[in-house]
Formats: sequence, structure tokens, C-alpha cells
Amino acid sequence: METFLFWIVPASSILALLLAWYFYKQMMRESEGTPIMAKIASHVRRGAMSYLKQQYKMVTMVFIGLVILFSIMAYGFNLQNHWVPIAFLTGGFFSGLSGYLGMKTATYASARTAHAAQKSLNKGLRVAFRSGAVMGLVVVGLGLFDISFWYLLLEWCIPADAMNPTAKLCMITTTMLTFGMGASTQALFARVGGGIYTKAADVGADLVGKVEAGIPEDDPRNPATIADNVGDNVGDVAGMGADLYESYCGSILATAALGAAAFIGTGDTEMQFKAVIAPMLIAAVGILLSIIGIFAVRTREDAGMKELLKSLSVGTNLSSALIVAATFVILWLLDINNWVNLSLSVIIGLAVGVIIGRSTEYYTSQSYKPTQKLSESGKTGPATVIISGIGLGMISTTIPVIAVVAGIILSYWLASGFDFSNVAMGLYGIGIASVGMLSTLGITLATDAYGPIADNAGGNAEMSGLGEEVRKRTDALDSLGNTTAATGKGFAIGSAALTGLALLASYIEEIRIGLERLGTTVLELPNNLSIAIHEASFTDFMLYYDVTLMNPKVLSGMFIGSMMAFLFCGLTMNAVGRAAARMVEEVRRQFREIKGILEGKAEPDYARCVQISTKGAQHEMVFPSLLAIIAPVATGLVFGVPGVIGLLIGGLSSGFVLAIFMANAGGAWDNAKKYVEEGNFGGKGSEVHRATVVGDTVGDPFKDTSGPSLNILIKLMSMVAIVMAGLTVSWSLF
Amino acid sequence: METFLFWIVPASSILALLLAWYFYKQMMRESEGTPIMAKIASHVRRGAMSYLKQQYKMVTMVFIGLVILFSIMAYGFNLQNHWVPIAFLTGGFFSGLSGYLGMKTATYASARTAHAAQKSLNKGLRVAFRSGAVMGLVVVGLGLFDISFWYLLLEWCIPADAMNPTAKLCMITTTMLTFGMGASTQALFARVGGGIYTKAADVGADLVGKVEAGIPEDDPRNPATIADNVGDNVGDVAGMGADLYESYCGSILATAALGAAAFIGTGDTEMQFKAVIAPMLIAAVGILLSIIGIFAVRTREDAGMKELLKSLSVGTNLSSALIVAATFVILWLLDINNWVNLSLSVIIGLAVGVIIGRSTEYYTSQSYKPTQKLSESGKTGPATVIISGIGLGMISTTIPVIAVVAGIILSYWLASGFDFSNVAMGLYGIGIASVGMLSTLGITLATDAYGPIADNAGGNAEMSGLGEEVRKRTDALDSLGNTTAATGKGFAIGSAALTGLALLASYIEEIRIGLERLGTTVLELPNNLSIAIHEASFTDFMLYYDVTLMNPKVLSGMFIGSMMAFLFCGLTMNAVGRAAARMVEEVRRQFREIKGILEGKAEPDYARCVQISTKGAQHEMVFPSLLAIIAPVATGLVFGVPGVIGLLIGGLSSGFVLAIFMANAGGAWDNAKKYVEEGNFGGKGSEVHRATVVGDTVGDPFKDTSGPSLNILIKLMSMVAIVMAGLTVSWSLF
Repeated sequence: METFLFWIVPASSILALLLAWYFYKQMMRESEGTPIMAKIASHVRRGAMSYLKQQYKMVTMVFIGLVILFSIMAYGFNLQNHWVPIAFLTGGFFSGLSGYLGMKTATYASARTAHAAQKSLNKGLRVAFRSGAVMGLVVVGLGLFDISFWYLLLEWCIPADAMNPTAKLCMITTTMLTFGMGASTQALFARVGGGIYTKAADVGADLVGKVEAGIPEDDPRNPATIADNVGDNVGDVAGMGADLYESYCGSILATAALGAAAFIGTGDTEMQFKAVIAPMLIAAVGILLSIIGIFAVRTREDAGMKELLKSLSVGTNLSSALIVAATFVILWLLDINNWVNLSLSVIIGLAVGVIIGRSTEYYTSQSYKPTQKLSESGKTGPATVIISGIGLGMISTTIPVIAVVAGIILSYWLASGFDFSNVAMGLYGIGIASVGMLSTLGITLATDAYGPIADNAGGNAEMSGLGEEVRKRTDALDSLGNTTAATGKGFAIGSAALTGLALLASYIEEIRIGLERLGTTVLELPNNLSIAIHEASFTDFMLYYDVTLMNPKVLSGMFIGSMMAFLFCGLTMNAVGRAAARMVEEVRRQFREIKGILEGKAEPDYARCVQISTKGAQHEMVFPSLLAIIAPVATGLVFGVPGVIGLLIGGLSSGFVLAIFMANAGGAWDNAKKYVEEGNFGGKGSEVHRATVVGDTVGDPFKDTSGPSLNILIKLMSMVAIVMAGLTVSWSLF
Repeated sequence: METFLFWIVPASSILALLLAWYFYKQMMRESEGTPIMAKIASHVRRGAMSYLKQQYKMVTMVFIGLVILFSIMAYGFNLQNHWVPIAFLTGGFFSGLSGYLGMKTATYASARTAHAAQKSLNKGLRVAFRSGAVMGLVVVGLGLFDISFWYLLLEWCIPADAMNPTAKLCMITTTMLTFGMGASTQALFARVGGGIYTKAADVGADLVGKVEAGIPEDDPRNPATIADNVGDNVGDVAGMGADLYESYCGSILATAALGAAAFIGTGDTEMQFKAVIAPMLIAAVGILLSIIGIFAVRTREDAGMKELLKSLSVGTNLSSALIVAATFVILWLLDINNWVNLSLSVIIGLAVGVIIGRSTEYYTSQSYKPTQKLSESGKTGPATVIISGIGLGMISTTIPVIAVVAGIILSYWLASGFDFSNVAMGLYGIGIASVGMLSTLGITLATDAYGPIADNAGGNAEMSGLGEEVRKRTDALDSLGNTTAATGKGFAIGSAALTGLALLASYIEEIRIGLERLGTTVLELPNNLSIAIHEASFTDFMLYYDVTLMNPKVLSGMFIGSMMAFLFCGLTMNAVGRAAARMVEEVRRQFREIKGILEGKAEPDYARCVQISTKGAQHEMVFPSLLAIIAPVATGLVFGVPGVIGLLIGGLSSGFVLAIFMANAGGAWDNAKKYVEEGNFGGKGSEVHRATVVGDTVGDPFKDTSGPSLNILIKLMSMVAIVMAGLTVSWSLF
């Protein structure tokens, strides 16, 4: 039965990829509109592609360096298993591919969306949404495809007589985590590089164009406009694609590894296998249900905003409702231990995602009090806007944290069969909750990814002079996307927290394997106890390494972990600041030196601005990203296993809260400005508007560079720790 | 020998108080200058006193509520020992008294400093510094006085036959921690209330006066000027006094409790007594050496800025050098176990404080690159100033965290005799390091507290029209104070981290006592082990409650702890924003409605502004402060002991990093503005200046409200947990 069920996983991944290809072809058949529209789109496309090429070159160098390091560790010193370097590479490759394909689609779709929006809102939505769906389906399709590919490859390659079956499955799942590290590394570079690119261009374009010269957003007279639009693609599309590919794979792989670990040494190979494939199956069925949801997004030809929003909600809600029902069926068919409670964990995961999403919406949408009050604080100038926005962002961390805490406790409690000492099953429950949260990623990502496409379509419409009406429609699509995207962001950030915990547990598993490779067979525990390593529980490893909260190495690791989150944010914030300053100077120079530019008589030098953003991003992304890779290794070498666990937990708890703070403060500033632009507190051009524009500009790197990168930082540090565990167990200073 | 040595403690505390009284009398003999100066000073003094009265009323109500609660727990349910309610009250009383006396001195000193500064810079320094020394000596004097008083009282009142001698000493030291909770509660209200007051007035005065009306700081035409000057006194003086009283007592009490715990059940009562009095003795000798340092601050009559700075540094450096030497002598005389290593821990503590101070100076002083670059970012407007400042602040957390981590590991390692499993002695070493760091508080606080006095003197000079020269001198004194205060802040923040850890360890001790009170005699450990409770080590308690990093209750507590730090900051930021907005409206109203105010023909309604700040602070301080008290109790009731420990650790690691971020970002913004005002990047009145003023305004609540309050939050949550431990051990939901 379970072997048969397993084949659903590769099958549904292939189905997703086929459908993505079909939607792509369908989109390509649409017209790009006037030659000017096509020309602008091709400008943006070429800028984006040339940036991505640059970025992939840089990342390739980092990957080569890391693969050499891993190869030395694996083949030279036997500190790692031999699959690590290759698995690492493929993870990075597929994560990059997801971003690339999503971005390619988006850059082809923007002019087509603008053209379609000339006809009707609904037509515009269809093109944009289907293009967003390409990205959603590519991410989940490639993700599950890789996972099943690697699973089958390892299953086939590792000889059955080398070890007992439960140990083998454990070996397979932990090796697959390496492929997650590849994805995380790629994702971090994509998020940080793309984030710096897009915000340098955006901040630069806004500060000189909107604030100083007083011309509208995306005005063709602004030299940074093309760079700004390129930025939306490389940051919000390619960056997000790589990011969510990583989240998706990370949660499934971590949960599979926990499933394997929960049954290691019990001899119950069948149940272990079920626990390993359960997360994959939930994800696979989630793909099928996402596809149903995507097709359910249909409206009448002359639909208004409300109907459109409703039809999008119908799609996502339908998928979520179905996955809940389907999970019960899957886990019942699998006949896994404690299947009812595990299914409830999936509901909990979904509920946590929805609560975080709703809370994000409440704190950042101009339909609610907090953001309206933030706009009002503009009456007393930009300083009070900043103070209030930071206050709002910090307070907004409360509900998400409480939701995640409730999710952790309840999913653990249920999965452990109401017995807190059943650590392995409890942690597995947390993993299953995170998989549940991301299971309908196919559709939630579609509703998230079409926003930037609509935004770009708006830019295209503005630059091609299509007129107010079209711009209004694309703006409506964009803001529609913002509402649905809030939920998507909630899922991404919530899953980062839960996956971070699941990865932490996988780290312990990796420690076991590392110790065994070093020849350790027995763990010496306090009070003169000892236990065979293959029988040791999570708690035994905690005792062996004294990972309690009174161990100064754990405490040191925690301080460093908290600091890492802040340092990383600070570095990316400053990177945006520096790159934006260069952009501002360039735009000012062009306004000054190119005569007739503001009258629309001379064409600005778009290419130079694109180049400045590209260089800035390339230059600035390396240090913070490498830091994320080096920190866990260095902490391990100094403080050993307890230090690393402290680092991961400290980084997770601080990073999660910091990420929510930054994302929500940034979102609220953005919408507070929009609220004023809608005509409140004096409307566009008023003092209050100028004050909220400052807030919006500060918020840009908050919500699009530092905040989302933190999600990946949390997981990448865990992934690095897992891959380098072999080194950490063999030597440390203290 | 050791009994004789103990008497140094009360003796030096009384000496400090006598000297403070002498300095006070000496200051009062100086002339207040012209009648206008005296009148303005009396305005400020009355405003400050009336605010403090209001605040103490409010705090008294909270104290009454808590004392009733503690009494019910102690006398009704036997969940606490009977001394708790009274000890709690005295701690609060003395903390408040420290703030009150410091503020009273400061408000009398401001006009006198301005008058003295008319004659020479040196004369001004002497009056201001001696008045600052009053505060320094009052804080350390009252602190050690209370500690020795309570120690003697409990020693005398608890009958020797009720328990064995080591258990008795343990009981005494943990009871004394309650008195620390009283001090923390008072300090939090003082910091939060005073911080809101001062920043509402400051932000309000700056936004309308400096930015909109274009009149200088402290101009008598600005209706918020008096409120601003009152704010400096209630926030920077009274708030800081209560805060450091709490830090000082907290570190000594926590270390004493750890010293008692390290020897409980060994039967070595003598060594236990030595370990308890060692921190008190180091502090007592620190007082004597501070006094020497204070008298060493002497300069020639016509000394310039450089000489003044040098003479201040000579004072603090001399005290620090002497305390290192003295510690070796004290611990050798005490003949305490491992005395050489413990003395080295004191050096480590001092070194950590100095490193944090230097790093603060580097990141926030306009003499160094980071702040200069921050000023430069003003070229592209206020948004980039904010982005760069936040980036700078976040990056600036790195060195302090590494210093604290090194301090934790090294002081633990040394004190444990290079054996990480010797947890009790290791933690005692961390405590000793924190005591070492604060031992010279008498003089470091003097160099810190004279800054606000000089600032106020400047305000007085401005309002009384004393002319440029005097104002320049008081500004010079103020900025001189900023440099020395950086070190003081480093000590305050570093000691909060170390004391937080020491308090955490004391919490475990309290758990033991709570369990014993409930009748538990044996702890059931994992793997079917059990141990008698009076023989259980720290690690055994960790096992008993499963306080490992894989326990979901611990993880939940950590997430909540991180969130608490952010929520608390957000609430206080918003409080300042709201109160400042009200102030802005009032100042604008007065400018509009009172004719002739800007021409200096009509007197503004200062009293109304004072009233607005007072009401705002009163109103806004209650919720965040109560939250800090409720959070550990609620977490304990839901998640039990593991949850509380997670909460404290999560709050400590995130809160420490967040506090440094906020303090340094705020400091850098302040000085970036000053750097521009010194004539760089266009100087006063330029676009860059306007941009940096926005940064400075945002930085105000960062560095003077939220940042410093976090230091107290960290410790108050631990104190509450300690006092409420009896409740937590007896019941929890999970």
C-alpha cells in the first residue's frame, strides 16, 4: 500500500510541471500590445536576465568553494557521507532554476497583463494570476521532483547489507537535508542580492523622482525606472521563488528526517517508512488540490473588485479545506501510528498560518486602525511616522508569536499522544504541522507572485503612456494581491519558525551519525549512566552534551544567535542604504547633466542605473551571506555541539520575532502612505504625505530585504550546522 | 577574620552617605546667580518634584497591590516565606529614594553650575561633577546599607535551630533577592515613566520649536522648554538613579545567593559565608576606591577641555586599577576557594564593561567614522538617515555580544577551576564578574550623572539669557560627559546581561526552596534515578524539569521571551509617540493662540506643557510595566518551570541585543546631528541638518526610553520569577 502511495509524489510533481508549462504557453500566446510596450518589457527582461546571470556567476563561485570544502571533509577526512557534495549542488541548482523560471515568466507576462488590462480588470487578472500560478507550480513541482528523485536514487545506491534498514532510511533522509542546504544557500543569495537590488533602485527612484522632482512613480523621465522594474522581478519574483522553494523542501525534508529518527532502532521498518513518506504525500496531495484551487479562480467577464477578491479567496480556501480532509484520508490509508492526532497537527499548522496572515493584514492594511493611525502620525512630521511605525511593528509581533507557540505546543502534544516525554514523535508532529502549513503552496504562491507581475504591468502601462484607466486596473490587481499575499507571507514566516525547530531536531540526528562515524558506540551520561548510541533518545543526547540552559556554552551560543539576526539585518540595511545613495547621486546627476530630461525631450540613461543596482547588489550580498554560513561553523569549532544548538535556538527565537517586526513595520509604512494618497489627511502632495513617504522609503528594506532574508538565515544556519555536524563532533575548543 | 571583614560593608556605605551629604552641602553653598536663574531653576525643580510625587503615588498603588498578593501567598498559602512582602517594600522604597535624592541635588545644581560656568569651565565642571558624585554615592551608599541591614536582620531573626546553617544562609540570601524585586519594580516605573516624560517633552519641543518655528533649543519662547528641562531631571537623573540602584543591588544579591547555593549541603558553613560576603566586600572596597577617584578629579584653574577629560579619566581609571589590586587582597584575606581565579573574574568583568563602553563610543561618537558617515547619509534625506542609523545600531551589537560571551565563558571557566561540570562555582564566577563590573559605580555614575546637570545648566543659561559663552561651556561639559557616560552605559548594559544570568541561577535555587516547602524531599530524574533534594545540583534540577532545548515548553518560553522584549519596546515607543503628539499640538496651539509669543512679548504657558508630559507619562507607563510583572507569572502558570526558564533566557538574549541596538542607534543619531551642527555637510539650517534632526528625534525614545528600560525589564522578569517560584512549582497547565 505505502509503496504504491509513494508514487503519487513523483507523479503529482510531474503533473505540476506540465501544467506550469501549459500555463506558460497559454500566457505567451497573448499579445504584448504596442511596440513601445514590447520594447519596455524587453528592456526590463534583459536587465533582469543580465542581473540574474551575474548573480548566478557569483553564487557559482561560492558553491564551488563550498563543494571543494565538503569534498575534502567527505572524501579526505571521512567527516561526512559521500553524497553530500552532489546533493548540495543539486539543491542549489533547482532553487536557482525555480527563481529563474518564475522570473522569466513574470518578465514575459508584464506587458501582456497591461495589454489585457486595457480590455478589462478580469482579463488582466487572468493573465497575471495564471503567470503567478506558473511560479507556484514550478516551485512545488521542482521541489517534490527533486525530493522523490533523491529518495529513489539513495534508496537504490546505498547497499542494503551495509547497515540495518532503519539506519539506512535515517541515512537517506539526513543526506537529503544536504540538498536542502544547497537550496538555502542559493535562496539566501537570491533574497539578499535581489532585495538589495530592488530596494536600492526603488529607494533611489522614489527619493529623487517622487520627493525631489515631484514626478509620479514609474515615470519614464526617471532614469531609475527601468532599474526599479527590473528590481521587482529579481527581488520579489526570483528571490521569492528561490526562498519558497527552500521553505517547501526544507519543511518536507526536515519532517522526513524526524520521521526516520523517531523509529530508528525500533526495528519497525514499515512504520518508519510511513513516517518518512507521510510529509511527502501530504505535499503531493496538496499539489493536486492547489491545481483544483487554481482552476476554481474564475469570474464573470465583467466582475468587479469584490468579486475578484472573492474568487481568489474561494481558490485558496477551497484548497485549504480539501487538504484538511485529504490529510485524514492519507494518514488513515497509510495507517500510521496516531494518525488522527497527526492529522489534527496539519490543521493546527494551517490555522497558525492563517492567524499570522490575518494578524499581518490587521497591522499592515489601511482598512484597519493601526495603519490609519500611522498615517495620522504624519501630521507631526516624518520623525513621529518612524517612531509610530517601529512601535507598531514591534507590537505586531505578539499575535504571531502566540500563534506559533500554541502551534508548537499543541502539535507536539497531539503527536506525542499527550505525553511530553515522547520527544521524537512530538517533534515529528511539529514538522507535520509545518508541512501542512505549506502544503497548498502551489496556490498561495500563485496569489502572492501575481502581485509583482501586476505591479510591473502598471510600470509598463505608465511608461508606455497607456493612460490612467489601465494604471488604475493594474494598481487594483496589485492591491488585491497585497491582501492575499498577507496570508502567503504568514505561511512563509510561520513555516520558517516551525521548520527551524524541525531542523534543529534533525541536527541532533546528524550528531548521532557523526559520532557513529567517529566510532562512538556508547554515550556516557551524567550520574555514571551509559547508553548504546543507537538506542539513545533526543533527551540522552541533550544530557550527553549537557545542552541545558545553565551551560555557559549554550548561553554563549544563544547570545551569538540573537546577535547574528541583528547583525545580518544591519548589514543588509546598510547595503541598501549605500547602494541607494549611489543611485540617488546618479539620478540627480542625470537630471542635472542631461538637458531636457524632465521635459520628456531627452531619454535618460536607464542602463547606467541598472548597472549601478547590479553592481551594488553583487558587491553587497557576499559578506552577509557568507557570514550566515561561517557563524555556525565557527561557533561549533569554539563551543562545540551545545554552542551550536544555542546559536540555532537564539537565532530562531530572535530572528523570527525580528523578521515579523521588520516585515510588518515595512508593510504598514507602505500602506500608510497609500492611505494618505487615497485622499486622507490632506492627500497627495501634503505635508502628511511627504512624512509618510519617508516612512515608506525606510520600510522598503525592512519588508523586502532584511525581513524576508531573516527567514532564510534562520534555516540556512540550521542547514549548515547539520552538514558540518561531522566537524563539530570531532573537535571544539571548549 | 571574615566576620571582621564583613563590617567594612556597612561602614563604607555610611561613609559614602556622609560624603554625599557633605558634597550636597558644599554645592548648596554656591550662588544660584541672578534672580531669573533662580526663578527658572525653581520652576524646573517644582515641575520635577510634582511629577515625582505623582509617579510615586501611582507606584505606591502598584506596590500595595503586589504586597497584598505576596501577603496572601506568604501568609495564606505558605507559597513564600514571610519576609517577602516587607523586603519587597523596602527595596522599592530605597530605589525610589535614590532617584529622589539624586534629582533633588540635580535640580539645585543646575543654576549653580550655570553660574559657576560664567567664571570658568573648570568651576562649572567642579560644581556639576560634585553634584553628580552625590548621586553616585547615594546610590552605592543606600544600596550597600540596605544589603547589610537586611543581612544582619535576617541573620538575627531566623532562629538557628530551625534549619542547618548552610540552609539558613541560603534562605537569607534568597529572601534578600525579594528586596531586589522591589528595587526593580520601582526602577522600571521610574525608567519608563521618566523616559516617556522626558522624550515626549523633548520630541515635542524639538519638532515644533526647532523644526517648524526655527528657534534654538531651550529658547524661553518655546512653551515646552520647562517641560523638557524637567524631563531631563525625571528621566536622566531620577530614572537613572533608580535603575543603577537596582543594577548594583541586583548583582550583589544574585551573586551572594549563588555563593550560598554553591555550598549548600556541604556542611562547609565557613566557606559558604565567605562566598556570600565576597561580593559585598568587593562592592564595599569599590566605594572606598571610588571616593579616592572622585577626589582625584582635580584640574588647574584654567584647564582646557582636554585636561578636563583627562582628569575625569584619571579618576575612573585610578578607581578601576585599584579595585583590581584590592580584589586580590580581599579574596586572599578571605582565603576563599580558588581565590586567584575569582579575582581574575573581577578583571574580566571590568574588561567587558570597558570594551562595551569603548565600542559604544566608537559607534556613537562623532569623532569616529560610523557616526560621520551617518551624518553624510543625510545628503539623501531623512529616510536614508533612518535606514543607516538602524543599520549602524544593529551592526554595533556585535562587539558587546562577543565581549559578554567571552566574559561569560572565561569567568565561568576560571571560577569553576577549568571544569565546566562544576556549574555552581562557574555561575558564581559570572556573578563575581558582574559585581566587579559595577564595583566602581560610585565614580562611574558620577561621571554619568553630571551630564544631565550640565545639560540643564545650559538650559538655564539659555533661558536666562546668559549669552553664548556660558552656553558653550555648559555644552562642552555636557559633551565631555557624553564621552565618559559611554563607559558608564557599557557597564550598565553589560552588568544587566551578567546579572540576568546570575538571577536565572538564583531562580533554580528558589525552585529548590519552593519544592521543599511543598514537602518534596526526593527528585525523580530520568532513567529511573532519584536524588535527595538537598543534594541535587543545578544539573539535576535541569533534568528533573527537562529544561533542555528540545522541550517544547522551553522553546515556547523562549519565543515569548523574545517577543516580550519587542512588545515592551513597541509599547514604550508608541507611548512616547502619543505623548509627543499631544505636546506638539499644545505647542502649536500656543504659538497660534497666544499673540506675541514668538516675538518674546508674551510668556508661554509652561505649566500646561509640564502637565501634558506628566499626564502622558502617568497614563502610558502602567501597561508596559505591569506586563513585565505579569508575563513571568502567566508563563509559569501555563508552561511551568521550563517555560519560565525559557522566557527568562529568551528575554535576556533578545533583550540584551535589542537594548544595545536601540541605545547605540539613538546615540549615533544624536551625535550625527551634532556633527552637522559643528559645521559639516552644510551645518545648521541645511537640508542635511534637517534630515539629521529627524534621526535625532527618532533616536530620543530609542536611547532614553525603550533602550534603558529593557535593561530593567530583563532583570525584573527574573526577579518576579524568583519571587513567584513558589506558585510556579505548585501548579501549571502543561
